[in-house]
Amino acid sequence: MAARLFQQRGYDATSMNDVAAALKLSKGGLYHHFQSKDEILFHIMSHAMQITEQRVINGVRRIDGATLAGAEERLRLLIRLHIQVVLSPEDREITVMLHENHPLPPGLRRKINGRKKDYVHFVEHVIADVQRKRGSPSPVTPPAAAFALVGMINWIYQWYKPDGLLTEEVLVEQFTNIFFRGAVG
Amino acid sequence: MAARLFQQRGYDATSMNDVAAALKLSKGGLYHHFQSKDEILFHIMSHAMQITEQRVINGVRRIDGATLAGAEERLRLLIRLHIQVVLSPEDREITVMLHENHPLPPGLRRKINGRKKDYVHFVEHVIADVQRKRGSPSPVTPPAAAFALVGMINWIYQWYKPDGLLTEEVLVEQFTNIFFRGAVG
Repeated sequence: MAARLFQQRGYDATSMNDVAAALKLSKGGLYHHFQSKDEILFHIMSHAMQITEQRVINGVRRIDGATLAGAEERLRLLIRLHIQVVLSPEDREITVMLHENHPLPPGLRRKINGRKKDYVHFVEHVIADVQRKRGSPSPVTPPAAAFALVGMINWIYQWYKPDGLLTEEVLVEQFTNIFFRGAVG
Repeated sequence: MAARLFQQRGYDATSMNDVAAALKLSKGGLYHHFQSKDEILFHIMSHAMQITEQRVINGVRRIDGATLAGAEERLRLLIRLHIQVVLSPEDREITVMLHENHPLPPGLRRKINGRKKDYVHFVEHVIADVQRKRGSPSPVTPPAAAFALVGMINWIYQWYKPDGLLTEEVLVEQFTNIFFRGAVG
């Protein structure tokens, strides 16, 4: 609800009063939960990271990655699940707040950035594992490949139209193709 | 200057008074040029698109793309020049404003979105040309490939550290590799 408000009005233009009114709380009631707007933004960003971690990381970990086929299946599933999180209409209000440019206070920013970094490292490991199990050296390094993959997927929210030719299914297939051939092929 | 202010304080939290003070203009003087903050943001975004068009599109068009080698050189140069625009310290204040989430009034938004679309179409054509001249059908379609490329490059500003292991040179080489193998390979 607060996330929707921030997106409609802009984060900086939304006051604690606006948030309290939208949540049908008194200002005192809202301050009981959050001491500042920054804390609300941090809470939304944490929630967005939690959604990503639960859907993508937990989903991927359910696959046994011991064999080459298993490791490839993990990477394939990672691409699909991450795209689904970005495109999920229920979660979009929350997840898009991860890209809010407003600078958080250093302590809160470090926590969120740490979680974002952990996610990129997870992607890196999944990629490195496929490369290793394929056994042929690749000119593409896992850190660069992970940033490329996370970038192409996270950027989708900038241009995606639900009624466009690039449907979720087509996008999953195309991005999987580009990335598999490009980074581990 | 206004761009730097918007980034430091957040777009919505910056007033016309703040901008006038930073530019050492009277409020009347500022309003003589821009009728609203939205117009200033639109002006900055237009400037960012102009930088991208001049550096990338004009640079690429200088290469003769008639042969396969020429078409490949165009794509290679496009990747390098676009990464350079994103990483350019002088232009970063301007170009990062393209990602400002603040909703512009519909008329201004349409103009900027039209220019962004034209850029993606240009990328699409450069990719399609390489695929066509290679003569072997690709499972990857130019529209999906163009969005993937623009996404992986534009996302760089989210994580890039000038003193990190992924230097501009390494990044250009790695992203070129990923994209050439993945989308036209």
